[in-house]
Amino acid sequence: MWSVLGTIAAICTTVGFLPQLIRGIKTKELNDVSPAMLTLMLVGCSLWLAYGIHLQDLIIALANGLTLLLVVAILTLRFLYKTTNAKGVARN
Amino acid sequence: MWSVLGTIAAICTTVGFLPQLIRGIKTKELNDVSPAMLTLMLVGCSLWLAYGIHLQDLIIALANGLTLLLVVAILTLRFLYKTTNAKGVARN
Repeated sequence: MWSVLGTIAAICTTVGFLPQLIRGIKTKELNDVSPAMLTLMLVGCSLWLAYGIHLQDLIIALANGLTLLLVVAILTLRFLYKTTNAKGVARN
Repeated sequence: MWSVLGTIAAICTTVGFLPQLIRGIKTKELNDVSPAMLTLMLVGCSLWLAYGIHLQDLIIALANGLTLLLVVAILTLRFLYKTTNAKGVARN
């Protein structure tokens, strides 16, 4: 029972950034998402990935590799939207 | 060396939501932050916290307890700002 609970916990925190990515793609707005948060997650997941590879722990490596991809995608979109929006109509 | 790297990784992913909370308090805007992401993180961190307490692992429990507090604070502020903004001037 506890291992099932641990697995559900890991899935939730791993795919947690997926709805953020989907929302960003739909609304084309990611301005309120903190770039400092994304950068901390980028550094954190990269180090977790390296740590997982070092430990040869497939779960740690895969989970953090996936989260890293999502965070990189959100950071890239945020940068692209910021650039596009700045070129458009002046906004509040 | 690897344990230091693991520790830095854990700190980054644990305090990752702190800049998001600070940004939210400063800008009073959290609309672009996905509520589905926050909910997944809420469920994930709660289960990790329970799992950490079950394993009597202080690190897992403390790290996820802290992240949980940050996520709850961001979710609460997002709800409050949404309500306040809806009462104010009509917005795009």
